[in-house]
Amino acid sequence: MTPERKPRSTDFSRRHIGPTPADIEQMLQAVGVSSLEELIQQTVPASIREAEPLNIGPGLSETEMLARMRAIASKNQVFTSLIGQGYYGTILPPVIQRNLLENPAWYTAYTPYQPEISQGRLEALLNFQTMVADLTGLDIANASLLDEATAAAEAMAVAQRSCKAPRTAFFVDRNVHPQTLAVLQTRAEPLGWQLVVGDPETDLNPEGLFGAIFQYPDTLGQIRDLRGPIERVKAAGGLAVVAADLLALTLLTPPGELGADIAVGSAQRFGVPMGYGGPHAGYMAIRDALKRALPGRLVGVSIDSRGNRAYRLTLQTREQHIRREKATSNICTAQVLLAVIASMYAVYHGPEGLREIAQSVHDKTAVLAAGLKRLGFERVNAHFFDTLTIRAEGRVEEILAEARRRRINLRKVDEAHIGIALDETTTPEVIEAVWQAFGGDFRYQDFVPENHLPAALQRTSPYLTHPVFNRYHSETELMRYMRRLADRDLALDRAMIPLGSCTMKLNAAAEMIPISWPEFANLHPFAPAEQAQGYHELFETLSRWLCEITGYDAVSLQPNSGAQGEYAGLLAIRAYHRSRGEGHRNVCLIPSSAHGTNPASAHMAGMEVVVVACDAQGYVDLNDLEAKAKQHADRLAAVMVTYPSTHGVFEEKIRELCEIVHRYGGQVYLDGANLNAQVGLAKPGHYGADVSHLNLHKTFAIPHGGGGPGMGPIAVKAHLAPFLPGHPVLDGGTAPVGPVAAAPYGSASILPISFAYIWMMGSEGLKRATEVAILNANYIASRLEPYFPVLYKNEKGRVAHECILDPRAFKARCDITAEDIAKRLIDFGFHAPTMSFPVAGTLMVEPTESESKHELDRFINAMIAIRQEIAQIERGELTAEESPLRHAPHTVLDLADENWNRKYTRAQGCFPAGQSAMDKYWSPVNRVDNVYGDRNIVCSCPPVEEYAS
Amino acid sequence: MTPERKPRSTDFSRRHIGPTPADIEQMLQAVGVSSLEELIQQTVPASIREAEPLNIGPGLSETEMLARMRAIASKNQVFTSLIGQGYYGTILPPVIQRNLLENPAWYTAYTPYQPEISQGRLEALLNFQTMVADLTGLDIANASLLDEATAAAEAMAVAQRSCKAPRTAFFVDRNVHPQTLAVLQTRAEPLGWQLVVGDPETDLNPEGLFGAIFQYPDTLGQIRDLRGPIERVKAAGGLAVVAADLLALTLLTPPGELGADIAVGSAQRFGVPMGYGGPHAGYMAIRDALKRALPGRLVGVSIDSRGNRAYRLTLQTREQHIRREKATSNICTAQVLLAVIASMYAVYHGPEGLREIAQSVHDKTAVLAAGLKRLGFERVNAHFFDTLTIRAEGRVEEILAEARRRRINLRKVDEAHIGIALDETTTPEVIEAVWQAFGGDFRYQDFVPENHLPAALQRTSPYLTHPVFNRYHSETELMRYMRRLADRDLALDRAMIPLGSCTMKLNAAAEMIPISWPEFANLHPFAPAEQAQGYHELFETLSRWLCEITGYDAVSLQPNSGAQGEYAGLLAIRAYHRSRGEGHRNVCLIPSSAHGTNPASAHMAGMEVVVVACDAQGYVDLNDLEAKAKQHADRLAAVMVTYPSTHGVFEEKIRELCEIVHRYGGQVYLDGANLNAQVGLAKPGHYGADVSHLNLHKTFAIPHGGGGPGMGPIAVKAHLAPFLPGHPVLDGGTAPVGPVAAAPYGSASILPISFAYIWMMGSEGLKRATEVAILNANYIASRLEPYFPVLYKNEKGRVAHECILDPRAFKARCDITAEDIAKRLIDFGFHAPTMSFPVAGTLMVEPTESESKHELDRFINAMIAIRQEIAQIERGELTAEESPLRHAPHTVLDLADENWNRKYTRAQGCFPAGQSAMDKYWSPVNRVDNVYGDRNIVCSCPPVEEYAS
Repeated sequence: MTPERKPRSTDFSRRHIGPTPADIEQMLQAVGVSSLEELIQQTVPASIREAEPLNIGPGLSETEMLARMRAIASKNQVFTSLIGQGYYGTILPPVIQRNLLENPAWYTAYTPYQPEISQGRLEALLNFQTMVADLTGLDIANASLLDEATAAAEAMAVAQRSCKAPRTAFFVDRNVHPQTLAVLQTRAEPLGWQLVVGDPETDLNPEGLFGAIFQYPDTLGQIRDLRGPIERVKAAGGLAVVAADLLALTLLTPPGELGADIAVGSAQRFGVPMGYGGPHAGYMAIRDALKRALPGRLVGVSIDSRGNRAYRLTLQTREQHIRREKATSNICTAQVLLAVIASMYAVYHGPEGLREIAQSVHDKTAVLAAGLKRLGFERVNAHFFDTLTIRAEGRVEEILAEARRRRINLRKVDEAHIGIALDETTTPEVIEAVWQAFGGDFRYQDFVPENHLPAALQRTSPYLTHPVFNRYHSETELMRYMRRLADRDLALDRAMIPLGSCTMKLNAAAEMIPISWPEFANLHPFAPAEQAQGYHELFETLSRWLCEITGYDAVSLQPNSGAQGEYAGLLAIRAYHRSRGEGHRNVCLIPSSAHGTNPASAHMAGMEVVVVACDAQGYVDLNDLEAKAKQHADRLAAVMVTYPSTHGVFEEKIRELCEIVHRYGGQVYLDGANLNAQVGLAKPGHYGADVSHLNLHKTFAIPHGGGGPGMGPIAVKAHLAPFLPGHPVLDGGTAPVGPVAAAPYGSASILPISFAYIWMMGSEGLKRATEVAILNANYIASRLEPYFPVLYKNEKGRVAHECILDPRAFKARCDITAEDIAKRLIDFGFHAPTMSFPVAGTLMVEPTESESKHELDRFINAMIAIRQEIAQIERGELTAEESPLRHAPHTVLDLADENWNRKYTRAQGCFPAGQSAMDKYWSPVNRVDNVYGDRNIVCSCPPVEEYAS
Repeated sequence: MTPERKPRSTDFSRRHIGPTPADIEQMLQAVGVSSLEELIQQTVPASIREAEPLNIGPGLSETEMLARMRAIASKNQVFTSLIGQGYYGTILPPVIQRNLLENPAWYTAYTPYQPEISQGRLEALLNFQTMVADLTGLDIANASLLDEATAAAEAMAVAQRSCKAPRTAFFVDRNVHPQTLAVLQTRAEPLGWQLVVGDPETDLNPEGLFGAIFQYPDTLGQIRDLRGPIERVKAAGGLAVVAADLLALTLLTPPGELGADIAVGSAQRFGVPMGYGGPHAGYMAIRDALKRALPGRLVGVSIDSRGNRAYRLTLQTREQHIRREKATSNICTAQVLLAVIASMYAVYHGPEGLREIAQSVHDKTAVLAAGLKRLGFERVNAHFFDTLTIRAEGRVEEILAEARRRRINLRKVDEAHIGIALDETTTPEVIEAVWQAFGGDFRYQDFVPENHLPAALQRTSPYLTHPVFNRYHSETELMRYMRRLADRDLALDRAMIPLGSCTMKLNAAAEMIPISWPEFANLHPFAPAEQAQGYHELFETLSRWLCEITGYDAVSLQPNSGAQGEYAGLLAIRAYHRSRGEGHRNVCLIPSSAHGTNPASAHMAGMEVVVVACDAQGYVDLNDLEAKAKQHADRLAAVMVTYPSTHGVFEEKIRELCEIVHRYGGQVYLDGANLNAQVGLAKPGHYGADVSHLNLHKTFAIPHGGGGPGMGPIAVKAHLAPFLPGHPVLDGGTAPVGPVAAAPYGSASILPISFAYIWMMGSEGLKRATEVAILNANYIASRLEPYFPVLYKNEKGRVAHECILDPRAFKARCDITAEDIAKRLIDFGFHAPTMSFPVAGTLMVEPTESESKHELDRFINAMIAIRQEIAQIERGELTAEESPLRHAPHTVLDLADENWNRKYTRAQGCFPAGQSAMDKYWSPVNRVDNVYGDRNIVCSCPPVEEYAS
């Protein structure tokens, strides 16, 4: 028997992994080992090494994967879903699909922490913020949240924190979307808050409430005048939150004008496919006075060192990585890619276009309503925008079945009511088919639409008046606008993004292709499971693979970010303790080196954070850990530990750490942010951890999208499996732990990316990727150590998959900081490494396995050149202020400056170390002034002079 | 009855057409008319205006179009085609699909006539040329031809021209692909050349031949040692041409080493889907001594004004637009996008990867052969690479049917033989299914592949040794390389390309999406018609629409370029005359303003060109026309006229012109290059023309692909319909006129683009587009006339859809040329207008309907600013040599130059008229030195220093 001699072109792992076999040989030599295995032996503790290979199977070629993925996709049935409930059919304009969603310049970008090289998406996000603020009639909006339900929960937390009195009760409109109520319940319970669910008009007793939330239009389609309830809540000292539909707000009086303090909701129907639940952009807008309580990312306007306008993330002191356990939210992801899509949808349609779309949806709904009325069906909601709730006692199942026969899903509200929500995509044929399901045989053309919006709530205020929403209405113009913005940014499609802890690896085209397929893109999250058999096959297989990779027993795919995964994991631990009658266990040990989300998540899960020290090597101080565990033994709930540590090393004693915590009755939460160093080599579930979240957007190739979507499924040992997050759609709300996200399977539509990655890499490819990731990091560490101290290494002098370079001595010696180095790297065409995390003043570099030796060498040479520039200052040839480091990044305006009076030439400034001028990436702005931006907060589109003409 | 109130977002024509209704009002005012209709009345002669609207129907929304296109696509059945015959399954790597084929930065680019802003695709084409030269073992290759069959015909013409004796006989290997033979026959006949078809070993009598062509491996799969036949042809004074398979050449001794003078073939199987026939890149490689006879585009290496390396098109004096009727070829298109894809396929796989793919194909074929042998079937070809010809007397139809039952197409060679050609995509399961069709039940794994290549023809010479083929083997590296190249170029995704006669309109994303669908991409051109029902429905509807738009009666979709359409149209005229016993009619009248392809095509069709004068207004001089027609009345075959003329005006007397020619027995060929000025307003078939080609890549939205593919279907009046090009696959070679291209329906796979365009625009949208195209041109003419004379206008002072700006006076006055202006426009971020056509020293501007008023104003302002810079020279403030015009385009190297000693500032040079620095497009090189490039001809990848390390 002869196996087919496959050409290497079919081996995807050779495309994913940057260095060639020949490169690897050279790199091993530079590192000083004779084989990859020797390096791994020196890096990964023997005590946790797996003896057996992964059992994933051989990798598929791209062609094979796509063919099999097609077969899975074909098991999903794309019905027309008129279920509503926060998810609607929408049209993603092809120009946006092709040039943004499917364009690596957009989807491979990182979070805009380095504002100079993120001006494009920062502008797009500012457009999003302006759009949300305009439509909601509020002052300031953030750059998106994970979904509507978690945005509501965040709003509740803002209200609680902002309320002057120490109150714990929150009123919830009984007609918010059911998943919103469920997520609010999950969030409130550990914090000891009480939810009062009722009718805003009849049940609202505002006394003692820290706030209230109302839905507008509500989940049944009714449009209430909320001015009264809002005023009563506010008069009693609470905050009023309105969950509102952005499309409806083009026709309805906005929440801000109704008096609301906060508006939340989803921008899904602005061009983002339903995707069986996500990802989409949730939103939050708020009154100006509350802006410092706003969670999530916020883009603001500042100036650069030349005084030119520049965008940046603003008010970062609000965020969890600063506030840690004092944060009220652990949110650190935005849904950037989806927010950008939604913003472009608004830019493309403009205010008139959006209003026409809304009017058309309303017209169609009015016609549908007229037909149902003619058939004798009673409508529950007197007014409506796009949603009808129809009384159909005794006939509900029959009508739903008749609709399904016509490939239409309606919403079963309860045994007596059917919900129908229309959208931009609804055709007259669909409406006629719905009538048929209700027993009618009308023609759409025979009806005249009437207006069913409340007279008192018709919108009169303008919106989207900024020029950006009124210029790019032809495809050519929008295409060029998106290209212009993309060109301002530096993403993975141009250069390595060596971000420690963020694992910016290749997001392969073959992995991305399936997410555009209608069978994945166009399913409603609450569509019947039998229509989503492809999805469920994918969920099950992916969960099995993730268990195989991690050594855990069960997986929840629901969490939409790493932080949400942490939170879900801690909720599971909490519920586990309670199930054993140990509900008093609420102390969470967290090493000082932890991600800021860890303490914030622990706080949200109702836990008390106790910080554990690290020793000089960056390891968790096991003595201190044991002392703290012992001290809190009766209340010890958990430890949260990142492995390999955020210091970039495999701690030898991770097994002992787990044993200590277990000994004192705690559970081990192992943060999976650094799983890329372990896949195929070690399994957290085997060396003592109980639960981890897995950042699919790091280890498993989902792109970062410019700052989201993220994905944080959690994997647990069997004893925690009963406590994975539930969802009312799946379990009727009976699960021990409620949902942490709006959709049962989180951002389902991007799971095919990770699935495809694992499928194509196979057991061997996955392990090889880990080994090369470790090699790449050690190669950088070895090559750069003569120039920059590597802060933490293990006893054998090795780092894991990332390394911390320590330039702090330069600060004292010659006033050059990590920031100067980071900005100077831009001149070389690189995104900066992670700055000041986990150690202030340092740079953490993670190359990933996808970077070639050529690119690593380019980075190394840039760093060496920078070191030489520092040496010039050390030698006194020029001061830090005079050096190109301080003036970095350089722009073409610097080059063009006729009054150039620097101590170095223009070429030295702009083309350091002989960099190619032809293909240079130019920073669009000079160094951004952070202080100015925080002192002069502007978070919506500023007036643009060139539009004025 | 109330029609659905559709939101304007569903009106595609509003997205396609740049100016908004409000813009249009302003522009009409600037032009000095009160309505679009008034402008059209002043522009288009009443005598040709159509009274009735087009009968295409209302336009579809993008969503509707895509849904209906899906339905059409689903009528195509994607079988596994093992038909071979020049077309093979291949894998387009997803990274190339997404970042190149589906990326407007690549597909919307224009032909690289302006080398400074085309360096990216020029490099990619140089890679293509290097790849072809290396693989064929010849010295120099061009930047691609239309397909293998026309490349063979071009090679025949080169041989005839290069032969020192005046010979007319050409030997053709009887085992060339049948479509190659048919195209050679079509080409030879009007020129009076005789084809001798026979066996190269037994039938070759080299005396009196100007050349010979052999296929390697031949169409039956046999691999002959061609050294003997080649030597005999050459010894007798002829040229030897080898049609060779590029993949096979990774394993076989290349044609150059066998002694061939020319190699031709197709690069289709290098990653370009079969697409039911095209487009793909044909190739031609040639010995150095013959390079000035090489047809088609040729990229060469030169230097820029700083002495840095820069690429450009070289040896343009070979081309038809220079040589006109003296040209031996009318070729002026390359298949740039497809050549670039093929080159990237080679860059990605590298020499080792290609060899492995070839070896794998050969192994699979060997296994297939072993199984068939075991079944007792006799193989005709002793040696083979990938193709087997199997004797199956009496069983052919049965076996073919059995294969089709398994969704596999085999080739019916004749009643006794079956052909089977394998490729990169063939799986063991397919081979097992083929065995089943032949009655066998084997397992692939039970066979050991043996080598069936002739021992004497195994390749030993290296290829693709240049670093570019050995570095970008990871997806990350290739993605960045393609981005880097794309960024060097200025395409429609960044700025208007105001090219007169080239109609660079929007290529909408929705139009492009279907071509990636497997149902369009993966059909073999000779697959049974019943598997291509979707395609045929599309062909029929598209043909009907094109007839409706043009007023003609029949269409052939076969011609792959405008020039090929001209040729096909003239062949139809020729055959028509012959059918009436007037075969002596061979004079073709061509106005002096004609495209250079016109006389070249006439020559190829065996006609004699008589030039007709134009008058001072740019009109065809009807007196001269009549005089010439009268003079040649007995031999008058045709007139070729472009309408509206290449001078950019609607000639009032086009009807009279047609009548004159008809009166003297001639036919009217109306060049459709400028059809964009007529759609919905006038129909050539109604005002007297007999035949036109339609540039689908101009008027009907197929992108220019950076210099191809083009598409030139011809439309004819009923009397010419019998003389449209045939194809042996369709008619068994019985048609009065043979094929002009290899595939029956030309570049079938891009027809969905034009189809989608017409479908979405609808009758009204198409007409509106024409009107706005005319408005945009007149707006530019009106606004710029105070600064630059508009050379030709009609009596009412109007231009058609383009206008000629005349800067010739500046040349005399202050030595500033059209080239200076063109290059200076780059500094403003614009591609130059058409230079020196049809009038030397002028600039022809065609904005198209897709450009917004904003972009038109940006262009107008740039031109005005340039005029002011010229005025400075006129005023003597600086000389032409000192002016920014002469130094344009400016690069960052100019800015960085510390020895800047210009009479203007850096900012004036680089950011003229206050252009934004942030989003500026930077020319990657300074002005390219044309003379240097033609004196020092290098047409393959030069050594690259930075790769050396």
